[in-house]
Amino acid sequence: MDVKDILSKVDHTLLKPDASSDEIIALCEEAMKYGVASVCIPPAYVQRAYTYTDGKLPICTVVGFPNGYSSTFVKVFETTDAVRAGASEIDVVVNLGLVKDGDWDGVLAELHAVRDACQGKVMKVIIETALLTEEEKIELCKVVSKCRADYIKTSTGFASGGATREDVALLRANVAPHVKVKAAGGIRTMEDAEAMLAAGADRIGASALVRIAREQNLLGLE
Amino acid sequence: MDVKDILSKVDHTLLKPDASSDEIIALCEEAMKYGVASVCIPPAYVQRAYTYTDGKLPICTVVGFPNGYSSTFVKVFETTDAVRAGASEIDVVVNLGLVKDGDWDGVLAELHAVRDACQGKVMKVIIETALLTEEEKIELCKVVSKCRADYIKTSTGFASGGATREDVALLRANVAPHVKVKAAGGIRTMEDAEAMLAAGADRIGASALVRIAREQNLLGLE
Repeated sequence: MDVKDILSKVDHTLLKPDASSDEIIALCEEAMKYGVASVCIPPAYVQRAYTYTDGKLPICTVVGFPNGYSSTFVKVFETTDAVRAGASEIDVVVNLGLVKDGDWDGVLAELHAVRDACQGKVMKVIIETALLTEEEKIELCKVVSKCRADYIKTSTGFASGGATREDVALLRANVAPHVKVKAAGGIRTMEDAEAMLAAGADRIGASALVRIAREQNLLGLE
Repeated sequence: MDVKDILSKVDHTLLKPDASSDEIIALCEEAMKYGVASVCIPPAYVQRAYTYTDGKLPICTVVGFPNGYSSTFVKVFETTDAVRAGASEIDVVVNLGLVKDGDWDGVLAELHAVRDACQGKVMKVIIETALLTEEEKIELCKVVSKCRADYIKTSTGFASGGATREDVALLRANVAPHVKVKAAGGIRTMEDAEAMLAAGADRIGASALVRIAREQNLLGLE
């Protein structure tokens, strides 16, 4: 797969707590130049990025992030607020306490509420694979399929581990056909990204890939 | 300082993403038995903990946590929702992007809005010292003093570093007299806690201190 194709599947991500507005603007510039799928940025920056890019760049943001334990009321409000501010993709973290309690109906009810608040925007459900057993991953594939999410996503990037090829293949095998897979967390090279895509990922969350393409001038744009 | 006095200043904390409801209930039981200042728990568990303890145990929860980059609208909503659910203490993370932009008016405006939403409950402002320069820490002492917060708090426990004695002393020296200091992050022993209190902390956020007191039967309760 060529670099341009890989980049077209990347959510170009900057979610560190101390990202400045200059860094977010630079991220948007790179994203437009390198033809990525979206920028994935903190909620507080969505409106500024949307205005700056004049609605021409898909803006992805996060909800209940990274720990997943906001109340359902708050997740719904966050989603509504992000969509109002211009987000076209919402990456929401599942409530892992409900998962550990085995309260699958509770997990599903919350995701249904967030789905409605997305108002048709793209919804990705982050399950944080590093904290789950295999049985929990498989059960979450069912729940995420039922809630009509667009994607299941492996990781926040803030847990002890990120995406693995094994997990991507497991999710791909267990979600319904309408659900895509986003691999995120620890994907730092083009080879990592290609391995995730080969394992069944449709989207990649990464912060370093555009920088690599730029520094090595892989698209001949510099 | 004796162990009972130390524990009386501890927010007994469980903020890992995959905490189950059984773990939260056990935390509340320990908290009541060992006479801590509060339990500090995920927002999604506040109502359950409040009901379980029949309003007898102060419930502390977190807002904009741990990354601080929720929108102001969301932080205000989260605070309102937490107070409604029974929280009596709100630990809110400052917007570090605004800090890095040097937008002190923006930081203050957000904290004023959260202060109002607290409806008189205790408000602690987490500044995440590990990500700040000394100048930023001092400037934040001024902003936190101006917003009428009850406490300035060093850390979330999710950054690369937690509380240090030097930072506690620095905050103590630079906040207004009405602002107390909470030290949190990496405080794992009674000696750590005592050092923080000696440096000027009024409150300690920690997850291990009650366990230590229980395992070593320091209060003679086991």
